[in-house]
Amino acid sequence: MNVAIIGLGLIGGSLLRALAAHGHQVTGYDIGLATRQAATALAGAAPSEVASAEAASAEAALAEAAPAGRPAWHVAGSIPAAVEGADVVVLAVPLPVLPDVLAELDGFPGVITDVTSVKGPVRDLLKGRRYVGGHPMAGKEESSFLASDPHLFDRCAWVLCLDPETSMDDWLSLAALYTSIGARVVPAGADEHDEAVARISHVPHLLAAALANLIDGHPLAAALAAGSFRDGTRVAATRAELIAAMCGGNAAAVRRVLPGVLEDLGAYAGRLAEPEPVAELTPLLRRPGELRRGWPVAECVPVEIEPERDALLSLGRAGGWVERVGAKVAGMRPETDRNRS
Amino acid sequence: MNVAIIGLGLIGGSLLRALAAHGHQVTGYDIGLATRQAATALAGAAPSEVASAEAASAEAALAEAAPAGRPAWHVAGSIPAAVEGADVVVLAVPLPVLPDVLAELDGFPGVITDVTSVKGPVRDLLKGRRYVGGHPMAGKEESSFLASDPHLFDRCAWVLCLDPETSMDDWLSLAALYTSIGARVVPAGADEHDEAVARISHVPHLLAAALANLIDGHPLAAALAAGSFRDGTRVAATRAELIAAMCGGNAAAVRRVLPGVLEDLGAYAGRLAEPEPVAELTPLLRRPGELRRGWPVAECVPVEIEPERDALLSLGRAGGWVERVGAKVAGMRPETDRNRS
Repeated sequence: MNVAIIGLGLIGGSLLRALAAHGHQVTGYDIGLATRQAATALAGAAPSEVASAEAASAEAALAEAAPAGRPAWHVAGSIPAAVEGADVVVLAVPLPVLPDVLAELDGFPGVITDVTSVKGPVRDLLKGRRYVGGHPMAGKEESSFLASDPHLFDRCAWVLCLDPETSMDDWLSLAALYTSIGARVVPAGADEHDEAVARISHVPHLLAAALANLIDGHPLAAALAAGSFRDGTRVAATRAELIAAMCGGNAAAVRRVLPGVLEDLGAYAGRLAEPEPVAELTPLLRRPGELRRGWPVAECVPVEIEPERDALLSLGRAGGWVERVGAKVAGMRPETDRNRS
Repeated sequence: MNVAIIGLGLIGGSLLRALAAHGHQVTGYDIGLATRQAATALAGAAPSEVASAEAASAEAALAEAAPAGRPAWHVAGSIPAAVEGADVVVLAVPLPVLPDVLAELDGFPGVITDVTSVKGPVRDLLKGRRYVGGHPMAGKEESSFLASDPHLFDRCAWVLCLDPETSMDDWLSLAALYTSIGARVVPAGADEHDEAVARISHVPHLLAAALANLIDGHPLAAALAAGSFRDGTRVAATRAELIAAMCGGNAAAVRRVLPGVLEDLGAYAGRLAEPEPVAELTPLLRRPGELRRGWPVAECVPVEIEPERDALLSLGRAGGWVERVGAKVAGMRPETDRNRS
C-alpha cells in the first residue's frame, strides 16, 4: 500500500519507519525543515551518517526495507507532493493543526486517517470525507522525529473507528496495514473510544492533579510522601497545556465520567463517618481491588470472525482486538469468565 | 540503650536487626512461636543454619554486631521477660492488638513507643503513660520476620510525635536511638501526622480505588488502559481490609482531607463545561504540575537547632528532619525558596 504521512513527530516518524521496515511504500512530510532533513538523511543514510542514538537503531530495519541504492522512504517538500499517488494519508499532526492540513487535501481521493487522542471531534471535522479515525495508544504526539522508533507499535493497541458512516472496505484496509506492523487493531465507535480514554487516561490525569494539590502548603506531608503519592500523582507532572488539551478536547466524555468518581469518593467519606468505619468501608473496596488485580487481562483466546461491523464492534467492546485481516478476521479476546467476573 | 521490641514482623524484625547491627542491646518477643524460633536462630546462627535468602543478607550485620559466641540479640518467651530491664519498649504490633499488649506493660517504668500508622488514637489509648508515638514510613506491618531487613530504615522518615504531654527527654532519647540506625527523625504533633498521612497515603488509596472502578463493565477501556491508569490505580490492588483499616483508623483526618479533592475535581468539571474548556482548565493544572515536578524536594540544607519543642516542630512542619542528637540537634530542611514557591 502507498501511504503518505503528514507530520513526522514521534508517532508519524515511528509509523514512517515501521511501514518502510515492513515493505510498504511510504512518503513523509513535516512542516519543519529540520525534521524533513533528518527524515531524509535517515532514509538513505549510510551508518556513518546516522546522527542520533535513536536513529542508529533504525539501521537494521533500513537494511531490510531498502534495497541497496534506494531510500527506505521518501520525504516530500509539500503536502500535495506527499499525498500524490497515495492510497492512504495519515494525519499525524496535533488536533489544532488538522483543519489547515485538511484544506490542502481537497480532492485527495484516498482514505484519510489520523492519530489524535480524541475521535468524536475529528469525525465531526471530517464529515463527508473518506475518513477512518485512528488512535494508537502509544507515546505522545509532541515528541520529535529524533525520538521515533520503528518498534513503537509492536503489540500496541491502535483504535480504528468503525462508525455507521465508515466504509467497511477502508476500515479493513487500514486494519490490514496496521496489523502488518504488529499493532493490535481495536474496533470501536468514535464516541465509545472517547469515553474509554476519558476513563483510563483523561480522568486519571485530573485525579493525579487533585492529589498533587494535597501537598500544597503542607511540607510535612510532602516529606512523608512515598509510593502511593508518587504513583498516584506521576502524570500530574505533565505540562498543564497538554493535560488541558487532552481533557478539554474530550470535555463531554470527561464530564460524563467524573461524576462516578465523585460519587465513589462521597460514598467512602460517608462510610468513614459511620461508627464502625473499617467494617463499613471494607466492602466498598473489594471490587476495585479485584478489578485492579485482574488488570491487565492475562488470559486471551484467539477468535475468528466475519469482517462485519457488528462482529468487529462486539470484539472491541469485549476488550478484544484484530491481529490479522483476510477472508476472515483473526483476533484475540479476553476469556469471558475473567472479563465478566 | 536497652531496647525491647514486641512484635517481630517486618518492622519489628527489621528494627531488632538494625539496632543490634548498631551495637544496641535488644530483646525481641513475638506471639508466634515460629517467629520467635526464626529470630532466635538468626541471632546466633552459623551461616549454614540460616534458612531463608532474606535472612542470609543479615549475616554481615551479625558479624559486626555479635562478638563470637554471643548472640546478636535475645528473644524472650513472654512480654514481661522481654521488657525486664529495658529502657524503651517498642510496640510493633497491629493497632487492634495494642490494648492487650499494654495490659502486660503495667508498671513498666521505661519509655513506650510504637510504629502504627495512625497516631491520634494511640495517643488517646496511652494517655497517662510514659509514651512517645512513632511511625516509620517504611514497608507494611503485616509482612513477616522473614521479610525483615536491617537496612529498611536507612534514610527512612521516622515520625516521632512531640505533643504537649510528650517528655522532651524521652523524645530526644528516641530520636538519638533512631538516628543512630540511619533514620531521618521527623518531629510532628500526633494530629499533624495523622492529617499528613491522610494526604499522602490514605486519600491516595481511596482515589486509586475510585479510579479502578472506572473499568468496571468497560472491557474496551480496560484494553486501552496504559501508564496513567496503571500508576493511578496501583495501590488499589492492596487488600480491601488493609486499606479500610488504614483509612478507618484515621477516619477523622481522611474526612477532613477528602472535601478538598472533591472540590478540585468539581472545579475541573466546571471548567470543562465552559465554551473554551482548554483555556479554562489550563491555569488550574499549573500548580499541581509544579508541585509534582518539585517533589521530592531535591535541595536541602543542614540546620542546627536547640533541642526544644517549638524549634523541632517548626523543623518538621517545614519538611525537615533530625539527623543527629547532641547538645544541639543537627537536621536538614528543604531550602525555603523552593519550599514556599
